[in-house]
Amino acid sequence: MSTPASVTPIPPASAPTPEGEDGTWLTTDRVFMGLLVVALPAAIASHFLFPGVWTFILCSIALIPLARLMGEATEVIAHKLGSGLGGLMNASFGNAAELIIALAALRSGHADVVKASITGAILGNILLVLGAAILAGGIKYRVQKFNMTAALSGSSIMFLALTALSIPDLFHAVRGPAADPVIFPMSVTIAVILLIVYVLSLVFSLKTHAHLYAGEEHGTPEELPSWSTKKATIVLLGATLGVVVVAEFLVHAIEAAIATFGFTHTFVGVIIIAVVGNAAEHSTAIIMALKNKMDLSFNIAFESSKQIALFVAPVLVLLSIPLGQNLTLEFSHMEVIGMAVGTAAATLIALDGESNWLEGVMLLGVYAILGVTFFFIP
Amino acid sequence: MSTPASVTPIPPASAPTPEGEDGTWLTTDRVFMGLLVVALPAAIASHFLFPGVWTFILCSIALIPLARLMGEATEVIAHKLGSGLGGLMNASFGNAAELIIALAALRSGHADVVKASITGAILGNILLVLGAAILAGGIKYRVQKFNMTAALSGSSIMFLALTALSIPDLFHAVRGPAADPVIFPMSVTIAVILLIVYVLSLVFSLKTHAHLYAGEEHGTPEELPSWSTKKATIVLLGATLGVVVVAEFLVHAIEAAIATFGFTHTFVGVIIIAVVGNAAEHSTAIIMALKNKMDLSFNIAFESSKQIALFVAPVLVLLSIPLGQNLTLEFSHMEVIGMAVGTAAATLIALDGESNWLEGVMLLGVYAILGVTFFFIP
Amino acid sequence: MSTPASVTPIPPASAPTPEGEDGTWLTTDRVFMGLLVVALPAAIASHFLFPGVWTFILCSIALIPLARLMGEATEVIAHKLGSGLGGLMNASFGNAAELIIALAALRSGHADVVKASITGAILGNILLVLGAAILAGGIKYRVQKFNMTAALSGSSIMFLALTALSIPDLFHAVRGPAADPVIFPMSVTIAVILLIVYVLSLVFSLKTHAHLYAGEEHGTPEELPSWSTKKATIVLLGATLGVVVVAEFLVHAIEAAIATFGFTHTFVGVIIIAVVGNAAEHSTAIIMALKNKMDLSFNIAFESSKQIALFVAPVLVLLSIPLGQNLTLEFSHMEVIGMAVGTAAATLIALDGESNWLEGVMLLGVYAILGVTFFFIP
Repeated sequence: MSTPASVTPIPPASAPTPEGEDGTWLTTDRVFMGLLVVALPAAIASHFLFPGVWTFILCSIALIPLARLMGEATEVIAHKLGSGLGGLMNASFGNAAELIIALAALRSGHADVVKASITGAILGNILLVLGAAILAGGIKYRVQKFNMTAALSGSSIMFLALTALSIPDLFHAVRGPAADPVIFPMSVTIAVILLIVYVLSLVFSLKTHAHLYAGEEHGTPEELPSWSTKKATIVLLGATLGVVVVAEFLVHAIEAAIATFGFTHTFVGVIIIAVVGNAAEHSTAIIMALKNKMDLSFNIAFESSKQIALFVAPVLVLLSIPLGQNLTLEFSHMEVIGMAVGTAAATLIALDGESNWLEGVMLLGVYAILGVTFFFIP
Repeated sequence: MSTPASVTPIPPASAPTPEGEDGTWLTTDRVFMGLLVVALPAAIASHFLFPGVWTFILCSIALIPLARLMGEATEVIAHKLGSGLGGLMNASFGNAAELIIALAALRSGHADVVKASITGAILGNILLVLGAAILAGGIKYRVQKFNMTAALSGSSIMFLALTALSIPDLFHAVRGPAADPVIFPMSVTIAVILLIVYVLSLVFSLKTHAHLYAGEEHGTPEELPSWSTKKATIVLLGATLGVVVVAEFLVHAIEAAIATFGFTHTFVGVIIIAVVGNAAEHSTAIIMALKNKMDLSFNIAFESSKQIALFVAPVLVLLSIPLGQNLTLEFSHMEVIGMAVGTAAATLIALDGESNWLEGVMLLGVYAILGVTFFFIP
Repeated sequence: MSTPASVTPIPPASAPTPEGEDGTWLTTDRVFMGLLVVALPAAIASHFLFPGVWTFILCSIALIPLARLMGEATEVIAHKLGSGLGGLMNASFGNAAELIIALAALRSGHADVVKASITGAILGNILLVLGAAILAGGIKYRVQKFNMTAALSGSSIMFLALTALSIPDLFHAVRGPAADPVIFPMSVTIAVILLIVYVLSLVFSLKTHAHLYAGEEHGTPEELPSWSTKKATIVLLGATLGVVVVAEFLVHAIEAAIATFGFTHTFVGVIIIAVVGNAAEHSTAIIMALKNKMDLSFNIAFESSKQIALFVAPVLVLLSIPLGQNLTLEFSHMEVIGMAVGTAAATLIALDGESNWLEGVMLLGVYAILGVTFFFIP
């Protein structure tokens, strides 16, 4: 950040200067705002005037800037609250958009779409986002260094999550139909264990080992919108309301999309919903890599996966009880294989504390091979 | 260790001062002795007066201090024999208690309990013991360092062991009933390979690379009982006799315990017998972590697992031939999954040469998830 | 290399002095030449005079020096072409012998032998070759260091390859017969992804990050034959012709070998063909370890596996289309398990940047356990 940057008016969103880092007019921010202004009214109109596949597409597009606005407003408020309370706020509301979309899908009985969107969000973060960030950064810089200990800590937690999300499927496969009645109570027990570990990991990163993450949150003042607490609260409430409404519309249009495009429920979950809910993280991780801040790229990828696996997934399991849906943590075999492959690939890359563009290619190659597999599911 | 410690009379067992490290009256040592004095006569009486589930419980409790006495006497004698012969003695008698208990169970035809106790001992060491030690040490010290090379060497050997103990099950699953007749000869061949590797690993740690482990054995003078060779030999013989007798009683009471508590054979093996045979290692590893000697905690966890997998398991397979039981190395699918998950988790923690309390939580979380799974086995 | 070595006449092949490194008369080179002079005419005669199992044996023996001559001639020409073009030549012709043998087997409809030889070549390189090199070097030197980043980069690429070669089998197992029709198109798509990654990995090692591999190629002048470009070209053409002819004879004799020895197709592929095609790499990797150049040993093992998995395997899939054989990337379960175990074992060894003889024992132990398994396949 050059010195003048701190005296010029602080620009909206994560673009460091009003014109984008390299003076272009088309900032990431303006792209997202344009999306919102065009897609949100169109999505609402479509739902009432010509419900169907177009509603699905427009709602998907409208959710991208809405999820981003929620994220930015959360970070602004978190920043004003200070590191302790603010970290807690970030940790619980950081994935609120994904949670709301998944709850809407769950209430409509689309349990397999919900599970596929969990898999998709995890794979998207640790393969697509991380791979794209490493590739983009690696083309600009020959070698990029990052804190191996922090990255490995992220991959340890992902390994715990992988174990938790694999065991019900493996157990069912191994024990056969006799295991049917125990899968749900087993999932609830595992969900409680995951939430306990999640709370302890917050104590770790916000309290006992906060120094490790000092200066690591991507909400440093210059990169956040210059909103007052009041404005941020209004944006948060407004964007949340928008997400709630649009998610309902999206879920109602799922069947139409499946009928029209021949998408499977898994494909809708793994690709569409996971990408929609995480588009903002994706762009931030790549921008950070281009600024040679690989620590942040790794942190975004692992932290986001961790929140999905240790917070969103178990909360959905517990909330499914009052909803009468009994969501389990039993994923399909291919989803389990995908998560295992993805966790192993990201761990291998994190091991030496250095990255280069070929490692990005390797992660994207693994993602492509898994993508081919999900595409070929009959 | 403060200077006066070396002039004051050397205390019995692993407590560094007569009153415990922080001056408390309730030393680990006294707890174990109390257990022995109360539980051993009660277990023997129970076997003859009211055989059944109480015999099972009392024998389990009595075995904990007996196994510890055997271990301590072995270490005292090993220490007097010097590093070469002593190391050999430790390596072959260090897990004698487990071996005796397993042989008793094997002779009574409880092959599945034997295998489950092998799985349980391995998982107990690399997840429960290591996790508890890292958590306990991590609460006292922010970061604890250890020798990554030694820890990774331990995890490499565990990987070889995992391969050996997984292949018969995987082979059987893949080839189907046609593989039935080859599982036992395959197990014998693999057992021989494991014993060869075990002998070579002793040559490595006692001869060619002994310097790596210098000062690492946990039998440093101040921490061992101040027994003469003669007294240690008597203790060793007495404790071994005790283990032999109590193990027989325990095995006879297994069926009563299963009938009363509804435990499965697997649960008895994985949890009860594995915990009973390793309780002493568990407490030592935690005490070492609290003294910031993480190298020792890792060494105890990996070394103990290695001895079970590379020595106890193959010896049991070979001894099963004269016993007419033909024990194979084919574990159940869930046991194989558990060992794979456990080995991977411990390796991930060992990778960066540092530990903190959250990594302990992670290992314990994996252990809890596996525990839930074994509990839910129908 | 001592100073006089650069003024004395450059010796043929990889022996550093005419009499072998320690002055013995029996250089590796002379052994290979002797094999050629004896086995080649015998193999040809056998094919025409008494075709059958002896043809198989003699052709196998004759292929070892022929494959080595091809490799040496390729390296001499590559060296004269300079690092860019030469690297490209090495990368595409380095495994030409394996490719020719596999194509001959494929044309005769032995698809399972082809796949087994791919598995065998990979396992042979990362377990047998690397294990033997580490063991041999470790007996001479207490600890050997190598560049961890380069080794881990090799193991990352092997992980991508493992994913690619496992997914079709896993997909088929998970989806059942419904997946039958998609396995071949899926294999072709994955083959194209692998070739793209292969080309990008060449751009990495020959262009953007060539400095990482500077001085690492094992074709340093003193160790290469002192052939002129013309002589090397003639040797290359002659040896290639020899391989082509002998490979045809070998393939025709496969059925006779299977009938006589009771070998399975898998055993022929995994052991015989894989060993024959890679014997030269094997001896070079061990010689480099004995010279304390572990970087080269790791490089040979990983690079050779990489070329098989990312170049030979996908090229065979694509060439199988005009041949009307439709070779897929669906390996057997045991092959997939073997490759997963092998990749994990080599990665574990590469992690700390140091090797000792026990790590060599560990790799060879894993190879032995897998060998037992393949031997017991009914």
